[in-house]
Amino acid sequence: EPAPRPPSLLPSRRCHHRSTAMLDVPFPPFCAFLATLGILCVAMVGTWCQHWRGGFSLDGSSRTFNWHPVLMVTGLVVLYGAAALVYRIPNTWSGPKLPWKVLHGGLALGAFVLTVLGLAAVFRFHNSQGTPNMYSLHSWMGLGTVLLFSCQWAAGFGAFLLPWAPAWIRALYKPIHVFFGSTILMLSVASCVSGINEKLFFSLKNETTAYKLLPPEAVFANTLGLLILVFGVLVLGALARPSWKRPDPDSPDSRQVRDAPAG
Amino acid sequence: EPAPRPPSLLPSRRCHHRSTAMLDVPFPPFCAFLATLGILCVAMVGTWCQHWRGGFSLDGSSRTFNWHPVLMVTGLVVLYGAAALVYRIPNTWSGPKLPWKVLHGGLALGAFVLTVLGLAAVFRFHNSQGTPNMYSLHSWMGLGTVLLFSCQWAAGFGAFLLPWAPAWIRALYKPIHVFFGSTILMLSVASCVSGINEKLFFSLKNETTAYKLLPPEAVFANTLGLLILVFGVLVLGALARPSWKRPDPDSPDSRQVRDAPAG
Repeated sequence: EPAPRPPSLLPSRRCHHRSTAMLDVPFPPFCAFLATLGILCVAMVGTWCQHWRGGFSLDGSSRTFNWHPVLMVTGLVVLYGAAALVYRIPNTWSGPKLPWKVLHGGLALGAFVLTVLGLAAVFRFHNSQGTPNMYSLHSWMGLGTVLLFSCQWAAGFGAFLLPWAPAWIRALYKPIHVFFGSTILMLSVASCVSGINEKLFFSLKNETTAYKLLPPEAVFANTLGLLILVFGVLVLGALARPSWKRPDPDSPDSRQVRDAPAG
Repeated sequence: EPAPRPPSLLPSRRCHHRSTAMLDVPFPPFCAFLATLGILCVAMVGTWCQHWRGGFSLDGSSRTFNWHPVLMVTGLVVLYGAAALVYRIPNTWSGPKLPWKVLHGGLALGAFVLTVLGLAAVFRFHNSQGTPNMYSLHSWMGLGTVLLFSCQWAAGFGAFLLPWAPAWIRALYKPIHVFFGSTILMLSVASCVSGINEKLFFSLKNETTAYKLLPPEAVFANTLGLLILVFGVLVLGALARPSWKRPDPDSPDSRQVRDAPAG
């Protein structure tokens, strides 16, 4: 592995164009904002299910279903987003890589476990109610997202954490892993908003609290959906931002840092 | 404006890393595939509305609503995607910029007009049926997407097509325009899949053709939703791909091409 460059060489990128430098937000405060937004999403989906949808249980009723949105928003969106952003922390750019790989893979594994529990909740609810599984577009998209996520985790573990993958396999697979990393988050967010939309049509059928009358629950859950979208867009934007990428000598994105004239 | 470099200098980027070069698909065949996929999405949404939902009219009935999915998929997803990809055509990288700017802005304007007509269709349907507007998460997300799109078009027109914006404004605004360009497409795709999901729950309520029994219409429209997702993901992937970006000397992504040693 090539020796990491000291971080003191990095800021040249930032001063390079005065106009774009005006837009340069440092990563740490942005990350703190994202963490707040993610925690807010988790708190809101929990509040929605607790306050308006009857709370939680494991008895196969709609209170079992309620684990589904909470676990999906927490695992497939917020924890997944945290895992995806690990390599945007400047501390990961130098020194030994293994601890950061373990953190990235561990957070992703935690996200995956919550996601599988989230699937188990909805299957258990459907089965105990005699409702068919896997008919809606939401379910097709969501299960497709989880299957992609499982392939992504297994391939990432095999290529980057197990010691025996050759360097050319890692170099070949890395851009694929990065592409599917963003793609899965995009699909997760689309799955969540379609699921919230669907759940509100299912639940708000009463004359006095119909969805179309926009009762407080509908405003609350619609707002949750928009916040999940904003969270997803901000994570994807942070991942795509060239100046926040790890200056890996293998990636074309870092070359301008080394080759550009300073200032 | 800086003089464009002759295209013959560009391929050095491609030969740089043998392993990633193995993944290098040329843009034109990818673009032909995307165009086919986009036309398939438009054909499928038209077939869905014509064959299963009663066809089209302007009388305020559900046949007026049917224009909504057709115009949104055609305008906000497919034509919008085409507009976004204009600067990935290598011909746009040299010579006068204005014709390509007019093409990009013109395609985006066409997409916007179809989108506004698509909004008009659903508002006319709701109003003639006495259904409230703008209560579902789908409608909030969709209208938010269209509002962002209108700001994006107006700001792009003002900054890049009108002659009097100073260069520093253009340089400052360009990354913002690029970021929101991808963001709006992501939101469009999420809006379309939540809308298809919602429409199928509304329409497939009959005992024999309930959505949960997965009648042929449900399979067809679910497949349409997945194809729209694939289209969106591929356009966003193409936009993000460094080797397909216009080698603009103002952008850090092009620097590695000029500064990297050949081969």
